[in-house]
Amino acid sequence: LSKFWSSRIKNSAAYVPGEQINDGTYIKLNTNENPYPPSREVLDTIRSFDSTRLNLYPDFSCHKLKSALAQKYGLNKNEIFISNGSDEALAFSFLAFFDCGDSICFPSITYSFYKVYADFFNINYTETKLTESFEVDLSVFDGNYKGVVFANPNAPTGKSVSFAKIKSFLERNPEKLVIVDEAYVDFGGQSVVPLIHKHDNLLVTQTFSKSRALAGLRVGFAMGNINLINALEQVKNSINSYTLDTIALESACASLRDDSHFKTAVSKIINTRTEVSEKLRLLGFMVIESKANFVFISHPGFSAENLYSGLKEKHVLVRHFNSPDIQNFLRVSIGTHEQMSLFLNLINELTIKL
Amino acid sequence: LSKFWSSRIKNSAAYVPGEQINDGTYIKLNTNENPYPPSREVLDTIRSFDSTRLNLYPDFSCHKLKSALAQKYGLNKNEIFISNGSDEALAFSFLAFFDCGDSICFPSITYSFYKVYADFFNINYTETKLTESFEVDLSVFDGNYKGVVFANPNAPTGKSVSFAKIKSFLERNPEKLVIVDEAYVDFGGQSVVPLIHKHDNLLVTQTFSKSRALAGLRVGFAMGNINLINALEQVKNSINSYTLDTIALESACASLRDDSHFKTAVSKIINTRTEVSEKLRLLGFMVIESKANFVFISHPGFSAENLYSGLKEKHVLVRHFNSPDIQNFLRVSIGTHEQMSLFLNLINELTIKL
Repeated sequence: LSKFWSSRIKNSAAYVPGEQINDGTYIKLNTNENPYPPSREVLDTIRSFDSTRLNLYPDFSCHKLKSALAQKYGLNKNEIFISNGSDEALAFSFLAFFDCGDSICFPSITYSFYKVYADFFNINYTETKLTESFEVDLSVFDGNYKGVVFANPNAPTGKSVSFAKIKSFLERNPEKLVIVDEAYVDFGGQSVVPLIHKHDNLLVTQTFSKSRALAGLRVGFAMGNINLINALEQVKNSINSYTLDTIALESACASLRDDSHFKTAVSKIINTRTEVSEKLRLLGFMVIESKANFVFISHPGFSAENLYSGLKEKHVLVRHFNSPDIQNFLRVSIGTHEQMSLFLNLINELTIKL
Repeated sequence: LSKFWSSRIKNSAAYVPGEQINDGTYIKLNTNENPYPPSREVLDTIRSFDSTRLNLYPDFSCHKLKSALAQKYGLNKNEIFISNGSDEALAFSFLAFFDCGDSICFPSITYSFYKVYADFFNINYTETKLTESFEVDLSVFDGNYKGVVFANPNAPTGKSVSFAKIKSFLERNPEKLVIVDEAYVDFGGQSVVPLIHKHDNLLVTQTFSKSRALAGLRVGFAMGNINLINALEQVKNSINSYTLDTIALESACASLRDDSHFKTAVSKIINTRTEVSEKLRLLGFMVIESKANFVFISHPGFSAENLYSGLKEKHVLVRHFNSPDIQNFLRVSIGTHEQMSLFLNLINELTIKL
């Protein structure tokens, strides 16, 4: 420990991202990346990008990308905040809306970064149980909290909560800040963005990293009432005014222009997910019904940790979380049809052998 | 004001970046951008970049860029932290090393983001006066502070403090965290990076935005003892694990491979700075001796605000700070020889006319 560290460094633990072994010899089914390349519009934008102007700062107002997103989602430009991945929008929300000592609430099984943010910024938190069918239980969020945050579809389960349930929750809780992390919504969930104009306490985050295959470019965004967006802009301008580079901003706009590529890639992933889920069930796995680009699976006869290691030995990476509640589960990102066939063959062998 | 805002949003004011009017009709001498394009190595890296792999996350450990910087600066890889611009490294330092209520110190005339960070993260601060020759006065930093931060060369003055003075300050103050912001050091200052192995309390930040002409790509870094770097890594991994995209990481490495382009551009800027300073003095301006890519100037006979407006009318942007101490100064970034000739002609006309 260093004598120069702040108490928040001494008393908190950072998020641990999934292994990133990108030497080309691994099939990566561990960080929910899209197995398909981004749109040709993106490739063309980068190939024809005039790099001589990189000497100039990017547009810190992100005007063009905000306009494009506003049009796509039926919002005003000032109801959109652009961030360096949706993680940054989520982290900034903790600074924008909660003070040290405030109480918030999120599910015990969810994206593990929420807990990291809360610890790091000294926010009290309650972790609530999922229902028996692994659904986020909104009824237990009704308590005396300043805010709630949950992923929908949830990670790592992939399970989604219905639009109607979130709508009803917002109607019951107008004084609570409600952050819905829709990183995976394009893979079959229903977005609550249409509720933004009715509920000034609703903030929705989304990302270009998953459905738009741009994890490598770091583009996320938050949508909500202008008062919420203004607070996020103030956080950004109190840390770093230029969080997205010029190439990322222009590539994100390009991606939005190609709806057909987006729809094709997403529907391929959904079809593969259905197939993989069925085949895993035939092998005796419990597969939670997923609306995301991954499946969360468990086998009564085999240890998830052993399966994880067995797969890694064969150069297939999946995600295993070393947390008591879910230690017998694996989160498997949906790759291409070919990648998933290989994965299923290996799983088949392992469940015979182990 | 919104009922959902945290108290830090209600009680702080954000940084205001310089105007970014990039419609191509303005000569921008207001945000200290490099007037020359980045290295051909960068242009080639981007042109030949395989965008199909943007579906994958970047390398969050920034391994290659850290190795390249370590080699360049004679440091170990784990003595380097990579950030989204050096502003992010500075902001993260405030979270990593200071607690609410700690006292720090910085000059009253300096980069205005330090005050924003301190306000935003609830750090007490003392602003100290510059010497009569506009130099940062390190002797007044000897007080009972947990840390000090200053830019060297300083902004917006351009004036630098000698290596010997910083060395002596570090020797006198081993218990204080000392952050030296060297954003402009490549334009004629002397870096204190060689002191890092002797002083575990020294953190130095630098950027690719100025001397390497990559403001549009958002790459900065901090150098210091491994304990300081580990704390910065923990801040990063408590906010957003992937702050730099793949193209930015690879382009920064490419830029480091081309030392000759770097040296040529920097020396052209230094020569133009010398010429511009002399000519401004002949027009009756007080020009502080600058070691940066800008000059800080004042004229006893003309209001800086009027000069700013007169220049803007002619589509030349310079920076005017609306702060009592420096309200009769302009900060003028050093552009190309041609841009500065135009600027000098306009200044000449304005000082005749006004």
